[in-house]
Amino acid sequence: MIESIPLQVEPSAITDAINNTWILTVSFLIFFMHAGFAMLEAGQVRAKNVANQLTKNLLTWSVGVTVFFFIGAGISGLVGGSPFTESLPYLADDASGYIGWLYGAVFAMTAATIVSGAVAGRARLRAYVTYTFLLAAIIYPVVTGITWAGAYLQIGDAVFHDFAGGMIVHGMGGIAGLTAAWILGPRMDRYDADGTANVIPGHSMTFAVLGTLMLAFGWYGFNVGTAAAMYETEAGMMAYNGAVLGRVAMGTTIAMAAGAMGAGLVAWLRTGKVDTLYVANGLLAGLVGITAIPDTTHYLGALLIGGLAGAQLPIVFSFVEKRLKIDDVCAVFPVHGSAGILGTLAFPFVHYDLGVPLAEAALTQFVGVVVIAGWTVGATAVVWYALKATGQARVTPEHERDGLDLSEHGVDTYPEFGDEEGVVADGGR
Amino acid sequence: MIESIPLQVEPSAITDAINNTWILTVSFLIFFMHAGFAMLEAGQVRAKNVANQLTKNLLTWSVGVTVFFFIGAGISGLVGGSPFTESLPYLADDASGYIGWLYGAVFAMTAATIVSGAVAGRARLRAYVTYTFLLAAIIYPVVTGITWAGAYLQIGDAVFHDFAGGMIVHGMGGIAGLTAAWILGPRMDRYDADGTANVIPGHSMTFAVLGTLMLAFGWYGFNVGTAAAMYETEAGMMAYNGAVLGRVAMGTTIAMAAGAMGAGLVAWLRTGKVDTLYVANGLLAGLVGITAIPDTTHYLGALLIGGLAGAQLPIVFSFVEKRLKIDDVCAVFPVHGSAGILGTLAFPFVHYDLGVPLAEAALTQFVGVVVIAGWTVGATAVVWYALKATGQARVTPEHERDGLDLSEHGVDTYPEFGDEEGVVADGGR
Amino acid sequence: MIESIPLQVEPSAITDAINNTWILTVSFLIFFMHAGFAMLEAGQVRAKNVANQLTKNLLTWSVGVTVFFFIGAGISGLVGGSPFTESLPYLADDASGYIGWLYGAVFAMTAATIVSGAVAGRARLRAYVTYTFLLAAIIYPVVTGITWAGAYLQIGDAVFHDFAGGMIVHGMGGIAGLTAAWILGPRMDRYDADGTANVIPGHSMTFAVLGTLMLAFGWYGFNVGTAAAMYETEAGMMAYNGAVLGRVAMGTTIAMAAGAMGAGLVAWLRTGKVDTLYVANGLLAGLVGITAIPDTTHYLGALLIGGLAGAQLPIVFSFVEKRLKIDDVCAVFPVHGSAGILGTLAFPFVHYDLGVPLAEAALTQFVGVVVIAGWTVGATAVVWYALKATGQARVTPEHERDGLDLSEHGVDTYPEFGDEEGVVADGGR
Repeated sequence: MIESIPLQVEPSAITDAINNTWILTVSFLIFFMHAGFAMLEAGQVRAKNVANQLTKNLLTWSVGVTVFFFIGAGISGLVGGSPFTESLPYLADDASGYIGWLYGAVFAMTAATIVSGAVAGRARLRAYVTYTFLLAAIIYPVVTGITWAGAYLQIGDAVFHDFAGGMIVHGMGGIAGLTAAWILGPRMDRYDADGTANVIPGHSMTFAVLGTLMLAFGWYGFNVGTAAAMYETEAGMMAYNGAVLGRVAMGTTIAMAAGAMGAGLVAWLRTGKVDTLYVANGLLAGLVGITAIPDTTHYLGALLIGGLAGAQLPIVFSFVEKRLKIDDVCAVFPVHGSAGILGTLAFPFVHYDLGVPLAEAALTQFVGVVVIAGWTVGATAVVWYALKATGQARVTPEHERDGLDLSEHGVDTYPEFGDEEGVVADGGR
Repeated sequence: MIESIPLQVEPSAITDAINNTWILTVSFLIFFMHAGFAMLEAGQVRAKNVANQLTKNLLTWSVGVTVFFFIGAGISGLVGGSPFTESLPYLADDASGYIGWLYGAVFAMTAATIVSGAVAGRARLRAYVTYTFLLAAIIYPVVTGITWAGAYLQIGDAVFHDFAGGMIVHGMGGIAGLTAAWILGPRMDRYDADGTANVIPGHSMTFAVLGTLMLAFGWYGFNVGTAAAMYETEAGMMAYNGAVLGRVAMGTTIAMAAGAMGAGLVAWLRTGKVDTLYVANGLLAGLVGITAIPDTTHYLGALLIGGLAGAQLPIVFSFVEKRLKIDDVCAVFPVHGSAGILGTLAFPFVHYDLGVPLAEAALTQFVGVVVIAGWTVGATAVVWYALKATGQARVTPEHERDGLDLSEHGVDTYPEFGDEEGVVADGGR
Repeated sequence: MIESIPLQVEPSAITDAINNTWILTVSFLIFFMHAGFAMLEAGQVRAKNVANQLTKNLLTWSVGVTVFFFIGAGISGLVGGSPFTESLPYLADDASGYIGWLYGAVFAMTAATIVSGAVAGRARLRAYVTYTFLLAAIIYPVVTGITWAGAYLQIGDAVFHDFAGGMIVHGMGGIAGLTAAWILGPRMDRYDADGTANVIPGHSMTFAVLGTLMLAFGWYGFNVGTAAAMYETEAGMMAYNGAVLGRVAMGTTIAMAAGAMGAGLVAWLRTGKVDTLYVANGLLAGLVGITAIPDTTHYLGALLIGGLAGAQLPIVFSFVEKRLKIDDVCAVFPVHGSAGILGTLAFPFVHYDLGVPLAEAALTQFVGVVVIAGWTVGATAVVWYALKATGQARVTPEHERDGLDLSEHGVDTYPEFGDEEGVVADGGR
C-alpha cells in the first residue's frame, strides 16, 4: 500500500467545474427544445407538410449553429463593444470558451426555429434557409449585442432587463415569425374571397402536446440554467447562488401552470370547451411570459404574468387571424411574441425591490421592446421582401396543393395512412 | 494585468451548489415524466379520446402544482408536525427553499397523474380536475406528512421505509386510480351483459412505448436523485454519498430490466406471444417495484423484486379486469399499485443488513401499506362518490360514444386519419 | 441558537461528488438514446412491424444490461488484463463502483441496439435476443477489453485512439448490423428477381425525426460526458477539465451540423430534392464521425469530418443496397459503420498536435479498425449462421407477409388506422 497524499485543489477549479457542468447540462436541455419545436410544429401542420416542417427544424439547427459559430457570435460581441476576435473562441483557440459559445448558440437557435412555425405550409425551403442564415449571422446577434453584450438600453439607472430572453429570444422570434408570415401571405384556402378565415387543423394533436411538454422540460434549462450555480461576491468570495436558482425555478413553474390554466379558462368561457391546443400553447405562453423576469418576480407576479400570458393567447390569436389576416400557422406570435412583450413590460410592476424609479424602469423596458421589435420587423421585412421580389419566397400553388413534402423533399411522411387525395383536393378543409 | 487573488469559498457554499444543481437536474427529469405519462396514456386510449387524455395530463400538472404551492406543501408539513408557515417557502420568502419545494412538487404530481390513466375515456374533465385539486391539496400531502415528514409509522426501532415513493407516490397513485375507476364504472362496451370482458386496444403502441422509455429516463432522476450528492456525517464532515448513489442507480437498472423480462416471460408462457405492451408496462412495474427500496437492496434482490413486479403484471391485470371487473384503462393498478406494494413489503427480506428485528420491519412495512392504502381508498371514494351522486363524475353515453375529444374539447386529434364512424359504431371492438 | 461550526470537507469528496453527479447525469442521457433508437427505427419500418421493432428495443436494454452486469463487464476486464473479480462491482460489493458500471453499460447497450435496425422486418425475436445476449456477454466486451481496458492496439508510441466509441461502439454496431442483415437476407419483395431494388418506405417520418433529435440530445452525454469534469494532474492537483469539455462540446455540435448539411447537399445534387430522412440520418452520421475524436480535433476538422460523414451516407447506402444487395433497413451501416470508420481513420489528420509520427498513428488507427471489424464480422457471422442453420434466424414467409407484430407479438400497433390489407398484399411497395 502506498501512503496516500491528500488531494489538493484550487477553489477556482471547483467552482469552474460546478458552474460548467451545470452550463453544459442546461445547454443540452435547451438543445432538446429543437426536438420539442419539431414535434409541436409537425403536429400543427397538415400531413402533407410534415416532412417539410421537420426538415426546416433540422436545417435551422445545422445551418444556424454553423453560421453562429463562424460569424454570429462575433457580430454579437462586435456590436456589444468587444473586439470581434474576443467574441469568437476559435480565433483565440480558447477550448474551454467553447462551452460559453455553445450556451449562447442554443439560445440563438431557439429564436431562429420559432420562425419556421409561422411560415409553415408555403415558404420555400431555400427562402427559409436563407433567412435562417441571416438571422443567425446578423439579425439575432445585433439584438444580443445591444442588450446582453453591450447593455446599451439604459435610461437613468435602469438597465433593460431580460433575464433569459423573454424578449431577446422569444419576443424576437415571435415578431420575426409574424413579419415573415405577413409578407409571405396566407396558405391557399386559409381565407375565403370575402375574408372569412377557415381553420386548417394540424394533423396530430398528440405530436403537438408531446412537443409542448418537451419544450417545457428544456425550458427549465433555459430559465434556471441562466442562473449560475456559484458566483463571485464583491468581497471576492465564491458564493452559492441559491436564491436566484430557487426563485427562477419557482417562477418558471408557477407561470407555466398559470399560462395553461389562463388559456384553458378563456377558451372555455368563449366556447364552452377546453381546447387542448390552447391549453398546451397557453402553458408555453406562460413560460414565455416569465422568461424575461423570473429572477426578480414575486410568486404572485409569476401567477399573474403567467395567467395573463395564457389568457391573451386565444384573444391575440383571433386578432392576428381575423383582423390582421396573417396566417401564423403555429401561433408563434401569441405564444412567443405578445407573451414575451407582456412579461418584459411587466418587469417593474412585479419586481418587489426595484431600486430605481419605477418610471425609469418602465420606460427602459418599453424602449427595449420597441427597439428590438423595430429592428426585427425591419430586418425581417427586408429579407422576405427581397425573397418575394425575386420569386424565391413561396412554392408554386401546385406544389402547395400537393404538399411541400412531395415537391420539396420527394417524400411521403405517412405512406401507409391517410387519404392523400382528399387532403390535396380541398386544401385541408 | 492585475495581480490575481486566490478565490475564497466556504465549504458549505460548494456542497450547497453541488447538491442543489443535482436536485434541480433530477427535478427537471422527474417533470419530464409528465411527457412520458402523456404519451403512455395517449397511446393506450382510443383515437377519439386522445386529446382528452392529453388535456388531463396538462391540467394535472398546471392545476396540481399551483395547489401544491399554495396549500399542499403546507398540509404535508402540518401533518408532519412542523408549523404550516415553515412548510411553505413563500410565507418565509425563502427563495432558495423553492428548490426543495419544486423537488417535492414533481413527486406529488407524479402521484396525481397516475389516476388519469385509470379513469380514461369516460371521466368528465371537471370531475378529474376537482379530484386532482383535492389530491394535491390534501390526499397526497397527508401521505407524505405521516411518512417522509413525520415518520409516524414506526414499530419498535423499525421506521416505515420508502426511499423514493414506491408506496407513497406510485402505490398511492395506483390505488387511487383503481378506486376511482371502480366507482366510475367501466367504459361502455367494455363488458358484455354476461360480464365477458372485451379488449379495447389503444390507438398507438408507438406512443405507448415512447412514453414508457421517457418515463424510464425520468425515473433515474426519481430514484437516483433521491440520494443527495453529498451529506453531512455525524462527525460534521461533508462526505460524498457514492455508495447510495451507486446502489440506487444499479438497483433501478436491474429491476427495470427484470420487470420487462418478467412480464414478457409470463405473457409468452400464457399466450405463446411476447406482448409488446406487457413488456413495456413490465419495465415500468419493475421500476415501481424497486422505488421504495433501491438504497438498501442487494443486486439479487433487485433482480428478484423487479422480476416479480413484472411477472405479476399480466396476472393482476387479468384479475382486475375479469374478476373485479374494474376498467383500469392504462393498467395503473398492476403497474403502480400492486408493484409498489410488492416492493414496499419486500423491504426487510432483500435488505442484507437490516439492523432491526425482521418481524418488526416486516410489520412496519405492512402497517404502512395498509394505512396508506386505507387512507387513499377512503379519501378517493368519498370524492368520486360525491361527484357521482351529483351527476358530475361521468360524461353522457352520447358523449362517450362520440369520444371525449369532441364533447369536452371540441377537437379532433387526427383530422386526416382514421375511420371515425367505425370507431364510434362499435365502441372500439 | 446553537453556535454553528464551519463544515469540513475533504477535497476528494468534492471532486468525487462533482465527477460522479456528472457521470450519472450523462449516463441518464445516454440511456435516453434507447428511446431515440426506438423511435428512429420504428419510424423507418412498415406499420405491420412497428411493435416488433419496439419490443426488440425494450428487450435489447433489458436482456443486454442484465447480461452485461453478470458477465459482460467482467469479460471486458478479463480481456483487458484485470482479474474478473475486479471488473464486476458486485463481486467486490463495491456500491459506489456501480456508477462506473452503469456508465459502461449504457455504452454497451448502444452498440447492441444498433443491430436491431439492420435486421428489422424479418429476424425472429428469439434469434435477435440470442444475438443480443452474446453481444452483451462477449462480442462487445472483447472489443472494449482490447481497447479501453487493455490498450493493446499500439504501434510505437501511438495508441489506438477512440475517445467515446466512434469505432468501439458505433462502428462495431454498424458492422455487426450489416453482417447480420447480409446473412439473414433481404425482406421479401425488397429485390425483384432481376435484382432491382424496391424502396420500402418507413411508416412515419415524424417518429424517425423525433428519434434523430432524441439521439442527438443523448449524444451530448455520450461525447461530452466521456470527459471528466475534474481530473488529477501529474502534480497531484485536481484540475478543472474545461479545455476537453469545451472542445468536445464544440466538435460534437459542428460535426452534427455538418453531417446534416453534407447529406442534404448530396441528396439535393443527386435528385434535386432535400430528402428529409437523409438530412436526419446525416446529422447522426456527423455525430458518429466525430465520436472517436472530439477531444483532439480542430474545429475545421470537425466541420470536415462531419460533412464527409454526412456526404458519404447517401452514397454508401446506395452501394450497400444496389451493389452488395444487403437490406440494411435503417441504414445502420452508412450511419454508424462507415461514418465511425471514417472518423477513426481521420484521427491523425485532424489532430493538430499529434506528438507521435503521423504514419505510426495512422497505422495504429487502421489496425484498430481492421481488428475490431474483423472480430465483429467473424463473431457475428458465426452466431447468425448458426441461427440460420437451425432454422431459427428468420420468421416464415407467411409471418413476414402478415407482419411481425401479429405473428411474434399478437398485437396491432395502430388498430384504428391504415389499410392493413393493402399493406399485406403488396409487401410494402
